[in-house]
Amino acid sequence: MGKKKVVTAAGRHLAESAALVEAALREWLGSRPEVPERLRKAMEHSLMAGGKRLRPALVFAAAELVGGTREAALPGAMALEMIHTYSLIHDDLPAMDDDDLRRGKPTCHVAFGEATAILAGDGLLTDAFGVLATSGAEPARVRLAVRELAASAGAEGMVGGQQLDLDGEGGDPTVRAVEAIHEKKTAALLRAAVVVGSALGGGNEVEISALGRYGMALGLAFQVADDVLDATSTAKELGKSPGKDREQGKLTYVAAVGVEKARRRARALADEACEHLRVFGNRPAAKVLRELAALAVERKS
Amino acid sequence: MGKKKVVTAAGRHLAESAALVEAALREWLGSRPEVPERLRKAMEHSLMAGGKRLRPALVFAAAELVGGTREAALPGAMALEMIHTYSLIHDDLPAMDDDDLRRGKPTCHVAFGEATAILAGDGLLTDAFGVLATSGAEPARVRLAVRELAASAGAEGMVGGQQLDLDGEGGDPTVRAVEAIHEKKTAALLRAAVVVGSALGGGNEVEISALGRYGMALGLAFQVADDVLDATSTAKELGKSPGKDREQGKLTYVAAVGVEKARRRARALADEACEHLRVFGNRPAAKVLRELAALAVERKS
Repeated sequence: MGKKKVVTAAGRHLAESAALVEAALREWLGSRPEVPERLRKAMEHSLMAGGKRLRPALVFAAAELVGGTREAALPGAMALEMIHTYSLIHDDLPAMDDDDLRRGKPTCHVAFGEATAILAGDGLLTDAFGVLATSGAEPARVRLAVRELAASAGAEGMVGGQQLDLDGEGGDPTVRAVEAIHEKKTAALLRAAVVVGSALGGGNEVEISALGRYGMALGLAFQVADDVLDATSTAKELGKSPGKDREQGKLTYVAAVGVEKARRRARALADEACEHLRVFGNRPAAKVLRELAALAVERKS
Repeated sequence: MGKKKVVTAAGRHLAESAALVEAALREWLGSRPEVPERLRKAMEHSLMAGGKRLRPALVFAAAELVGGTREAALPGAMALEMIHTYSLIHDDLPAMDDDDLRRGKPTCHVAFGEATAILAGDGLLTDAFGVLATSGAEPARVRLAVRELAASAGAEGMVGGQQLDLDGEGGDPTVRAVEAIHEKKTAALLRAAVVVGSALGGGNEVEISALGRYGMALGLAFQVADDVLDATSTAKELGKSPGKDREQGKLTYVAAVGVEKARRRARALADEACEHLRVFGNRPAAKVLRELAALAVERKS
């Protein structure tokens, strides 16, 4: 796959997805008069701070891949981005990873204080499920999406991954330990993005399941690439403080096998993700998902 | 209503509800091998610390009132208690109310550290929606329950109330400001308990709406009574540190109008709650809900 093409198709999809979900999130934030002002501002600070909007892009592409519309998938795209944003807010807290900088801006607790940052995260997490449940898809599909999102983000998923990440600090970075953290901390939510998208988009069991496997492999590829970026980038490139993984003794793929092997592993995982899309042949959305997998490991931030 | 009777019928319902939901929560905690051990222990520490289990009791009573079973309502009862527990864990954090004692035990962050306490709260909050979505009720009813729970617990509800509570510290305790906090911080989730219970239990719109009004009035009564308890109890009676509201300059009903007027207001709100149950006549579950309203303002802890 030529690099030019990767940038073209997936890049356009990312830009369109970001525009769609940001407009919807902005409207959502603006239509909640009952949210206390300081809380709304804190939620907005983190939710509208930019970022790749990879999860919404995955939700939309998965929905389109199974014949659904972006409109049907929109509540899912919003919910995924809200959950992702809450996780960044809480992970950045002083008691957790203690980061001051995120996407080139002060983190939520630096800008609004710890109490409001905790609440902004709680609010985004809770309301993600409310937004998801506004979907006009069949109620049984909405219920499936709620279960998937909760499973991937909860104590057995992302929250559990963050706990393993904290527990592991300073421990022995075996590939096995690192992958267990990556699966939960990052891959589960990327898996949820494509599962939620295809569920809301009208996919059948085989399609949803294939996309789930794609999402898990993509997620692992993405996190291994993240480990590489943390070890090799500057703060300017990254929009956040680099080198923190090593400083904090995190169990990363780079710590386990070094930068070069980690790069190769990320590429192999991206290839594996694409294998799971074979069942969809050459549909345009499958091409977008393949290119997103390539981008996940080629990105600079 | 005689005091003896209050203890008898509502007391039995509370005990049965607590036994049911505690058994279900214990089984749920024990059947999640993918939850990291430290996180599971922290969740268990707070979830199984006892307490009145008022919200599950409301869920069950509301379901029964509309002709549903406790079995159908159980995922709702579990979800409400999980959300309530997460809110206590996060409210107790040093950056929030900074409490060391809860239900006579060390708070979650004292026992497990701040990071794990934040994650235990996040996990319970997230998984509450996953548990709710396991309900065997019609999917459209589950979707309604998810929306209600998210609305009542999110940035326009409980999370927003906690923000107002923090923002208001040291401010002017007008009745209006205090009631705005109480509505969001406490009443919204009690309202959700009866709405979720009646939705899962098969209630029609009129029934769900009447129960929602009952829940809101009950919730306000409960919180005004809480303000009174904080001002008048000992730590032994309360199972947590009393007098903290005044110490922290919280906007409470007691600060606004004094203890005696607050007591009268709580009783009036409990009576108002009962008025909303008239549509249900003398069904046994209506009696339980009336007695729970009385208990909410007569309790000693």
